[in-house]
Amino acid sequence: MLGGLLRLLGLFMIIPLGVAYYYGESLTPFLVSILVTTLTGFLLLSYKTEEEWMRKEGFAIVALGWLAAAVFGAIPFIMDGISPLNAFFESMSGFTTTGSTILNDIESHPKSILFWRGMIMWLGGMGIIVLFIAILPKLGVAGRQLFRAEMPGPTEDKLKPRVRETARILWTIYFVISFLQVIVLMLAGVSLYDSLNLMFSTVSCGGFSNYRLSVGAFNSPLVEYITALFTFAAGANFALYYRAIFVDKNTLLKDEEFQFYTALILAASGLLTFLLWRDFGTNLSDSFRLAIFHVISVMTTTGLVTTDFNLWSDSAKMILIIVGFIGGCAGSTGGGIKVVRVLILLKHSRMELFKALHPRAIKGVKLNSKNVPEEIVNSIVSFVVIYLLIFVSSTLILSVLGMDIISSFTASIATLGNVGPGMNIVGPMSSFDSIPPLGKLVLISNMWIGRLEVYTVILLFTPEFWKK
Amino acid sequence: MLGGLLRLLGLFMIIPLGVAYYYGESLTPFLVSILVTTLTGFLLLSYKTEEEWMRKEGFAIVALGWLAAAVFGAIPFIMDGISPLNAFFESMSGFTTTGSTILNDIESHPKSILFWRGMIMWLGGMGIIVLFIAILPKLGVAGRQLFRAEMPGPTEDKLKPRVRETARILWTIYFVISFLQVIVLMLAGVSLYDSLNLMFSTVSCGGFSNYRLSVGAFNSPLVEYITALFTFAAGANFALYYRAIFVDKNTLLKDEEFQFYTALILAASGLLTFLLWRDFGTNLSDSFRLAIFHVISVMTTTGLVTTDFNLWSDSAKMILIIVGFIGGCAGSTGGGIKVVRVLILLKHSRMELFKALHPRAIKGVKLNSKNVPEEIVNSIVSFVVIYLLIFVSSTLILSVLGMDIISSFTASIATLGNVGPGMNIVGPMSSFDSIPPLGKLVLISNMWIGRLEVYTVILLFTPEFWKK
Repeated sequence: MLGGLLRLLGLFMIIPLGVAYYYGESLTPFLVSILVTTLTGFLLLSYKTEEEWMRKEGFAIVALGWLAAAVFGAIPFIMDGISPLNAFFESMSGFTTTGSTILNDIESHPKSILFWRGMIMWLGGMGIIVLFIAILPKLGVAGRQLFRAEMPGPTEDKLKPRVRETARILWTIYFVISFLQVIVLMLAGVSLYDSLNLMFSTVSCGGFSNYRLSVGAFNSPLVEYITALFTFAAGANFALYYRAIFVDKNTLLKDEEFQFYTALILAASGLLTFLLWRDFGTNLSDSFRLAIFHVISVMTTTGLVTTDFNLWSDSAKMILIIVGFIGGCAGSTGGGIKVVRVLILLKHSRMELFKALHPRAIKGVKLNSKNVPEEIVNSIVSFVVIYLLIFVSSTLILSVLGMDIISSFTASIATLGNVGPGMNIVGPMSSFDSIPPLGKLVLISNMWIGRLEVYTVILLFTPEFWKK
Repeated sequence: MLGGLLRLLGLFMIIPLGVAYYYGESLTPFLVSILVTTLTGFLLLSYKTEEEWMRKEGFAIVALGWLAAAVFGAIPFIMDGISPLNAFFESMSGFTTTGSTILNDIESHPKSILFWRGMIMWLGGMGIIVLFIAILPKLGVAGRQLFRAEMPGPTEDKLKPRVRETARILWTIYFVISFLQVIVLMLAGVSLYDSLNLMFSTVSCGGFSNYRLSVGAFNSPLVEYITALFTFAAGANFALYYRAIFVDKNTLLKDEEFQFYTALILAASGLLTFLLWRDFGTNLSDSFRLAIFHVISVMTTTGLVTTDFNLWSDSAKMILIIVGFIGGCAGSTGGGIKVVRVLILLKHSRMELFKALHPRAIKGVKLNSKNVPEEIVNSIVSFVVIYLLIFVSSTLILSVLGMDIISSFTASIATLGNVGPGMNIVGPMSSFDSIPPLGKLVLISNMWIGRLEVYTVILLFTPEFWKK
């Protein structure tokens, strides 16, 4: 499996090779990367076994598959002169669509390298394993487990009985949205190269930008609104789009998670608009544009910016921190805890309050008029507990390494939630380069753990996993 | 019930009246307070109804009983010239054993007023309702519900079949520990007045001090260690002491919550010792004394200090913030989320990880070799969710009012967890006086909600509660 994955990755590296050729840049970085990745792929493929997969192997394949992608995806960056640790950081940040960067002078890097940096976000957005399932001939039952281990969210949307068809549908929708955004951006006057890169970053909820000023570099409210719209779309459940087109056009409006997602964005943007207007005297329409852009960007865990929100008041920053914790919807390309988990926990709490008054009442949590099984609630609880535990540990480690509390706190949630920029020393206009090596390793783990929603990675580190 | 409670409160005010007489201070504040409180009590008592209590009335009595105690307990402070809002803040902070103060120049206030300020912590520590149950003739089944609504922790320790006997045992243990501490402090050379006040603050996990420098004013490592020891004792489950004496002397060591409580304190103190030694070059034994004192003080949500931890490094502060969130044991006088809730959530998460590998395994969470019922886990989850929701809302409101993020964050957890001092502008050497009025009201609500463990107060604000 890993061999096949690397072979596929090597194949994808041909695209930035073409970009390098087109712009007359050195071809060596990608030639070497393709060679190393593909050879390792074939080497691994020769070790084929006929053994049936068990549950454990499924988790291991997904976790190690992402690790392998990040390692081999780092080769072009190393060839570009970036240190191995930084290259690994950047590659993991790309594949996991985190968007935290260690590049200080982004514009100085070759276009082909930046293209690859964007492309890995796009591959990671909908999921490299899901892509693999969509392309590979047959995986059968095993495919479903791989799919579950990678897809974000507590429940699985079975669009089709066969997981391969579901994977194909999701990737097709993803591709269509991506294509649409490039067209719209080009109509707005953005070059093809910039459109592609901005699209990579947007639809994947990634957040890397080819410009130090991020979306601010375009200096165009139109581009900002287009980006915000597509980010919003990327942060919603992709399965809903399929249902809205082929089953019931009201699917989106009826979906409780989508309603809550939209309501949270509007509420947060409203409050933020008021604060920016009050604290900086910015006029209301500019305040609103700033507010909704950054609320959507951070809530979907994209992390693109049009301004340095590090300079905002603490109350404005608080709003971004809160929505960053929540994250996007299940089945989206966004990270974080996910809207549906927060929604179910809130419904669960309201029910428990009700039970305190009526202890004999039998009542369960409902979502979209369906009962939420007790096991789902239990797994959400444990997800959130482990998530917060990792978050607290990471913050503590970074602060022991000497980082201030706000930087440690926001760097931890920015990587674990796959948001991208943090605050203070890891703010949107600075980079993660200044963090000590041990801190970088912690943040790399955060991205990996966060993208695969905790369980898939954490299980590998339990003694239970290695028991015969 | 409320009338009886106020009559009792008026009775207790005779003690600081005696202190005022002894020190030759003005008697007026307490004479007026006694008159107003007792008269209101008798007035309410005359409205006696014979109606049977329902569940709702039980919650209402406890929540409103505490509110009434805080309101009438504030009268002496108002008579001392403190503004009504500040007096209410100080009184609520005392009864709920929070220990956040609005006094800037503590030493300038009369000894009798400071004595009352200490005494209300002591009354609130084991619980005014529990005391009421212990003293009042018969409450029967209703008493049990009141007891549950006030006692901290997710489960009830039935020491005796009759709730009144349980309440009496708990208050007796509390009284004995209090008496012991006064003796020990006096043997260490502390005056009776100071010993009483320090005891009030310690055994209740309160945190008010009669000195701006808090325990640091005694300038005595011996007093610090005595205080730390009794704070540690006050943060453990009082029911365990009864069992250890009358049932099985190994009860304490065998109890998983007590084990985890001790382990957390040792681990946090160890790390903090290292950080203080590394960052300030303090020698190891002084670092250890500083570390264990403050870890115990903050974890038990007492909030006494011997130094201004506001000046520590961010990593050292982080440790205090983390243990402050966890809080003391169930059935202790400490606040916070409580050790047993954190322990059960961690066990629950470990079990869910196990189930991810073995989905058909039937396994429940065990505590002290007993199964933890699903309903307890559910109510813990909803407790923590609502707790965090209130915490986040409070932090957001304070920051919108203009407070910086660290002050908002720590002021919120310091009041909701009944810890006392926060950091930055609400640090241990400053006061809560500078917070805007609306912010003070939010913090007062936090203390009230936190002391009664969320449900009892929050229920009053649900529409469901007021439905016929």
